[in-house]
Amino acid sequence: MSGQHTDSIDAAGNGLLHRRFFLKTGALAATALMTAQSSARDRPAWMNAPGKGMSAAGEPSQYEKHVKRLAASRPGTTGSGASRSPLEHLEGIITPSRLHFERHHSGIPEIDPGQHRLALFGEVARPLSFSAEDLCRYPLVSNIQFLECSGNSGAMIAPSPVENSCSILHGLVSGSEWSGVPLALLLDEAGIKASGKWIIASGADSARMSRSIPLSKIYDDAIIALYQNGERLRPGNGYPMRLFLPGWEGNASVKWLKTLQVTDQPAMTKDETSKYSDLGETGKAELFTFDMGVKSLITSPSPGLDLDRQGLYQISGIAWSGAGRIKKVEVSTDGGSSWADAHLDAQPLPKSLTRFRAAWRWQGGQSVLLSRATDEVGQVQPTRAQVMKGRAPGSFYHYNGIQAWQVQTDGKLRNVYV
Amino acid sequence: MSGQHTDSIDAAGNGLLHRRFFLKTGALAATALMTAQSSARDRPAWMNAPGKGMSAAGEPSQYEKHVKRLAASRPGTTGSGASRSPLEHLEGIITPSRLHFERHHSGIPEIDPGQHRLALFGEVARPLSFSAEDLCRYPLVSNIQFLECSGNSGAMIAPSPVENSCSILHGLVSGSEWSGVPLALLLDEAGIKASGKWIIASGADSARMSRSIPLSKIYDDAIIALYQNGERLRPGNGYPMRLFLPGWEGNASVKWLKTLQVTDQPAMTKDETSKYSDLGETGKAELFTFDMGVKSLITSPSPGLDLDRQGLYQISGIAWSGAGRIKKVEVSTDGGSSWADAHLDAQPLPKSLTRFRAAWRWQGGQSVLLSRATDEVGQVQPTRAQVMKGRAPGSFYHYNGIQAWQVQTDGKLRNVYV
Repeated sequence: MSGQHTDSIDAAGNGLLHRRFFLKTGALAATALMTAQSSARDRPAWMNAPGKGMSAAGEPSQYEKHVKRLAASRPGTTGSGASRSPLEHLEGIITPSRLHFERHHSGIPEIDPGQHRLALFGEVARPLSFSAEDLCRYPLVSNIQFLECSGNSGAMIAPSPVENSCSILHGLVSGSEWSGVPLALLLDEAGIKASGKWIIASGADSARMSRSIPLSKIYDDAIIALYQNGERLRPGNGYPMRLFLPGWEGNASVKWLKTLQVTDQPAMTKDETSKYSDLGETGKAELFTFDMGVKSLITSPSPGLDLDRQGLYQISGIAWSGAGRIKKVEVSTDGGSSWADAHLDAQPLPKSLTRFRAAWRWQGGQSVLLSRATDEVGQVQPTRAQVMKGRAPGSFYHYNGIQAWQVQTDGKLRNVYV
Repeated sequence: MSGQHTDSIDAAGNGLLHRRFFLKTGALAATALMTAQSSARDRPAWMNAPGKGMSAAGEPSQYEKHVKRLAASRPGTTGSGASRSPLEHLEGIITPSRLHFERHHSGIPEIDPGQHRLALFGEVARPLSFSAEDLCRYPLVSNIQFLECSGNSGAMIAPSPVENSCSILHGLVSGSEWSGVPLALLLDEAGIKASGKWIIASGADSARMSRSIPLSKIYDDAIIALYQNGERLRPGNGYPMRLFLPGWEGNASVKWLKTLQVTDQPAMTKDETSKYSDLGETGKAELFTFDMGVKSLITSPSPGLDLDRQGLYQISGIAWSGAGRIKKVEVSTDGGSSWADAHLDAQPLPKSLTRFRAAWRWQGGQSVLLSRATDEVGQVQPTRAQVMKGRAPGSFYHYNGIQAWQVQTDGKLRNVYV
């Protein structure tokens, strides 16, 4: 299944190329330069006058206005909905903070940090209260990690493939450098009683988003995040502080964190019973399926980024796993008949997006592009059929099936089931 | 010199603490919570109505407006100057793109990517021309790396210490994830002739910034950068494409890259003779000192972030080296009498900012904070006296001396020489 590997230029069927043979294919993207000397003398308009001056904050180019989040609220609300990262226009493993996905249940509170405190109480010896400035006195940690909404890719449960872009279908995942205080430090300071087994985290939004988290996760790697990609959190991602639980479903990383109550059992809040629990086909709900599974996506090419001519393309995508590091990503351009290992940048980081890339020569025929990730604990990304097995109709959380993009002979791409 | 290390709470003199004993110091930043129940019921104004709705791009909080770049142009110009990263307000190793430092010689050209081409010619078999879209068909690579202006920290050569903030003194360094095409791939496609030894890179700004780069660097790790922190470069950082030379002085990473001419010798452009060369005290100029030295800075506390009470503080800073990975950073709070190793996050990345942190208890006395970085090739950050030795008066490039912040008994910090 993991593809025939040969010493030829071809890494697998239907045009997948070995990266090291890329240059030998003789059909690269450059144009022959006819007039080197005139090119050096050529002065476009923007070279004939001084450019724009310095500024307190840099802005994207006016030619990149199409790179934006796709925001949608439920009818009748302004703040219950999601904005999705434009994955097909991004590269690498960092999502710019302005383009990080958001999912809100009652809009974005605009919190004055001078008036916000985090209360830690319940089954503890010493109830404590912290401002954001207090938290900055503790030893911080920084890690580059992904965050994914458990509802991401939920449209893939539709009986027929939904025609849409990569970001509309899968844009509720992003990657950032998160800096904050290990929550274990604060719990140690408060002194957990023997009866303390869970922690109920609740936010300062008007929906009072609340989740129950087992203490084992808190002591593993939970932080109170204060910074995202170097600067303080933005309001849409929990300013002035949020819980951050690496590798777990996004809603458990409660934004605008206001209270942490240590308890002997989970609270069964509305956000873990009416929502965010997985319904099986027997009608039984599974609670507390926190871990995000191993997953990958080809972000380019993808629907909307159509192929305009035969020849070489880079296949580029992201892979991630809530269980740790990505070990490998295989790609196929013939719908799974043959596979080749994609190239991964440097050392994949644990619980982080990992960028994968492969070289591909499109010869104008129909093609089906797939990617399949494997993580360091041996989990292999499942097929759609495997994910759908045993689910109740409409149960859409935690979808991590292999995505298929069909390339048509006219170069257009679309979402298909294989 | 590298500090006495003991098993006590103290890691070195004057209050530097072992990280693992942090909690035992009994003087933490939290406040006792008196009213746990009321805290859970308390509803600040922003919890009583739905918050702001979804948006196409997230914005920073209105309470973080002080976190901005410090921009200054030469009198009589709008575009010749620099904007500096607000280092003392940032954490981790990623600088948000809007806050990345910029240094321009004639402002920021607003380039239409549809009209921009990169020409590669000179001592090559096949002169070539590339649009940004062409370049996206090649196999990209992504790396998190620093960029530093060779003039960064130049104010430190003043005979008396300049009273200013960390970002005014040292804000011409930033860290990003850079994604682009290895330039070696393009050179291989063009076919370098035996006579080709250097490459003259020149930009599409109205100053036509131009630098000569030896081919050895190009074949080592040079890229044509297209993306910064996940999105396309911003105009201030070279949109639609720039040269990026990891670990080398920033001006050599020519922005708005327009031509690459392969030559048998350097071109001695205005930007490498009248500027960006180091003048020795004998009056002889050293050309082509590209590598940025090993360096570190304590960003917090620093001038402007004054200490408001005795007790625990986190010392946080950044270290970097043009030669590779940071191996260790030592900190001192007693002006260098004793040192302790700072904590580094995870595995430092090569030619990247590395965040270091240490726990410190300020007991109200005078204190002098220092950091000293060592890189993987064994370079140790020099003292100011060592850096100044042999320089002509006014020669300010490539300053990487140890920075001293004096903490006064009133908690204010200032730049001092030790």
